[in-house]
Amino acid sequence: MEYKFSDKISSLQPSAIREILKATSDPDIIPLAAGNPAPDAFPVKEVQKIAGEILAQEPITALQYGISEGYQPLRDTILAWMKKHENIGRSFDDILIVSGATQVMDLTTKILCNEGDVVICEEPSFIGSLNCFRSYGCKLKGVPVEADGMNVDVLEDVLNSTPNAKFIYTIPNFQNPSGATMSLEKRKKLYALAKKHNVIILEDNPYGDLRVDGEPLPTIKSMDEDGIVIYAGSFSKILSPGLRVAYCIAPQQLLAKMTVGKQAADVHTACLNQMIVDRWFKEYDVDAHIAKIQKIYKKKLDLMCDCIDKELGDFVEYVRPQGGLFIWCKLPDDVDMIEFVKKAVDKNVAVVPGNAFLMNDTDSTQYIRLNFSTPSDEGIVKGIKALGDVARSYER
Amino acid sequence: MEYKFSDKISSLQPSAIREILKATSDPDIIPLAAGNPAPDAFPVKEVQKIAGEILAQEPITALQYGISEGYQPLRDTILAWMKKHENIGRSFDDILIVSGATQVMDLTTKILCNEGDVVICEEPSFIGSLNCFRSYGCKLKGVPVEADGMNVDVLEDVLNSTPNAKFIYTIPNFQNPSGATMSLEKRKKLYALAKKHNVIILEDNPYGDLRVDGEPLPTIKSMDEDGIVIYAGSFSKILSPGLRVAYCIAPQQLLAKMTVGKQAADVHTACLNQMIVDRWFKEYDVDAHIAKIQKIYKKKLDLMCDCIDKELGDFVEYVRPQGGLFIWCKLPDDVDMIEFVKKAVDKNVAVVPGNAFLMNDTDSTQYIRLNFSTPSDEGIVKGIKALGDVARSYER
Repeated sequence: MEYKFSDKISSLQPSAIREILKATSDPDIIPLAAGNPAPDAFPVKEVQKIAGEILAQEPITALQYGISEGYQPLRDTILAWMKKHENIGRSFDDILIVSGATQVMDLTTKILCNEGDVVICEEPSFIGSLNCFRSYGCKLKGVPVEADGMNVDVLEDVLNSTPNAKFIYTIPNFQNPSGATMSLEKRKKLYALAKKHNVIILEDNPYGDLRVDGEPLPTIKSMDEDGIVIYAGSFSKILSPGLRVAYCIAPQQLLAKMTVGKQAADVHTACLNQMIVDRWFKEYDVDAHIAKIQKIYKKKLDLMCDCIDKELGDFVEYVRPQGGLFIWCKLPDDVDMIEFVKKAVDKNVAVVPGNAFLMNDTDSTQYIRLNFSTPSDEGIVKGIKALGDVARSYER
Repeated sequence: MEYKFSDKISSLQPSAIREILKATSDPDIIPLAAGNPAPDAFPVKEVQKIAGEILAQEPITALQYGISEGYQPLRDTILAWMKKHENIGRSFDDILIVSGATQVMDLTTKILCNEGDVVICEEPSFIGSLNCFRSYGCKLKGVPVEADGMNVDVLEDVLNSTPNAKFIYTIPNFQNPSGATMSLEKRKKLYALAKKHNVIILEDNPYGDLRVDGEPLPTIKSMDEDGIVIYAGSFSKILSPGLRVAYCIAPQQLLAKMTVGKQAADVHTACLNQMIVDRWFKEYDVDAHIAKIQKIYKKKLDLMCDCIDKELGDFVEYVRPQGGLFIWCKLPDDVDMIEFVKKAVDKNVAVVPGNAFLMNDTDSTQYIRLNFSTPSDEGIVKGIKALGDVARSYER
């Protein structure tokens, strides 16, 4: 049988980028291309203890069907924590527990976008979210990211010229892949522009707690007096990505539709996993844990920056991020970026070619994305050394 | 801000039915409306032991990101089991682990259907799947279910008159809500018709192992020589629904697109949960466990049938199902079904009004759906007694 696919899924073709990324699953390759949190940041003993307690004390709740909105104690726990931690959540807001933060992108697109509608994104932006928007047949319009976040003047032009823009997707803290953090002034301007144009903001903040330098800035959601911000929060970077528990805080009217969408997509998020997260908050000092992992990440970021400065100092340009997982490096203009990435794979180092993060991934760019959380310290040293060898192979 | 929703999600309006179903979350209500597996069928001690072992021995694999295709040992385990258990899986097939079987319906619709395309369904059929298809803007065409399954003559007419039908959705065993099991002859005819018309079959078999009477029939997927059947399998009824682990066996070309769709929707299914299922298969006798829960379900079905015959024998008509979770009862023609359901709620018994399962839920029907797996034995006796009281309130 010859299969005929939907238009929206046909647009998600396997690309040359994916072929390069496949190399990252090879255990002999140094994984500077991944986006995994550092395994030594996982609270393993705590999860062991909690999971045992739950299955001993409340096994039926953990194993039976739950409701689409999420496990009520966890919903209460997160709402209280986010109010205290980020001043998020007003009387018109509510919370939905989801199966990883990507599901917030999925449900937002499902409830807001018809095929052909536009999603305004930072350019570059996280490929997983871009593919999610594409999987609904949306068109992407990119707004350049600068060292202090999205260019809000370009955003204004795009909003003026795009009547069918349904939402603006932003990762304000330690953006993936650029590492940029949006300034307070730009956060306020973005909010004002979205409000003026009647467009929703989808604020994705998976890395917010991974700040290693500088002062925390208020989330855009904390400024939301008008019910125009959908906030995606995640435990993947502070607790565990494999548990697939995240959450969305948004105005009730939006959340009611997202809940209907979630019910039709996966019914509810796994109960045992939700209960593990809830007990973790109740039994342990989450702020102390976050402080601990910030130290781990700061050490790794310092190490990678030192290695880059030593091995690639004359070759690449980058802005040191204030947190997160990624360093966004610009290669010299006369270097073929894709060729550089292939040469790196030949030396057993995987990095992500920057065009993966563009609205149109056939556009060219001189950037590559490096990840410092997944590799061991030894891997960082060896990996950047190997990239230095590739750089030195170019006569300059 | 006045929110504007996508066309597809706007079509999923809260209905009068949902208001009635809300009553089912009240703990004082006897839950004959639910579809939960019996809690005493959960292998609680086994899951306790397995989860402890996994988090002691392989905590990083359980807590770190996994790949979208699923945890490889579990993929191998299920493929081997399904080959032995159901003779499913040919050289062109592969497996995708999903976050509950509803995600198979979601991904099938995502990869095959543009907005406005038609999904052919048994009528009545499972409301969760119907809402999933609706959430992609699909049109539903119903084919009546008879005591031996879908009317294949009507199916042929529908196929002839519906060029944009993309797939046929069927629950061949102990169908939800009708309880009907499709005969072998009809399974063969359905397969032949789908092949002739170049239309995919989506075979949803969550209840197949809950057979309490009669002989097992081959799945439609086991007949699939042409790569036209997508099979949705679930552990919700034999192990645990709260873990949210299920699987799809389908031709590789279809599965490749579904995997891309899953990556964009929720990245991957929770690792700990997949590892629990895998170890359960490896360390325990799953066939013996299935035999044990079949006994539990047979006892509950016998009890509910006895109660119905005693309390409602002159009032309702039903065909005793050979397994599953549900009994589909027809009220007398002169009784207002919705009024009957409301009177039941007043007596603290929740049942599902049959129109919830129709393609157009504003159509009328005389049926109600009763579930015998969720209530305790005492709940079954008290619940059906209360329905008998409602029946006796009608002067006849």
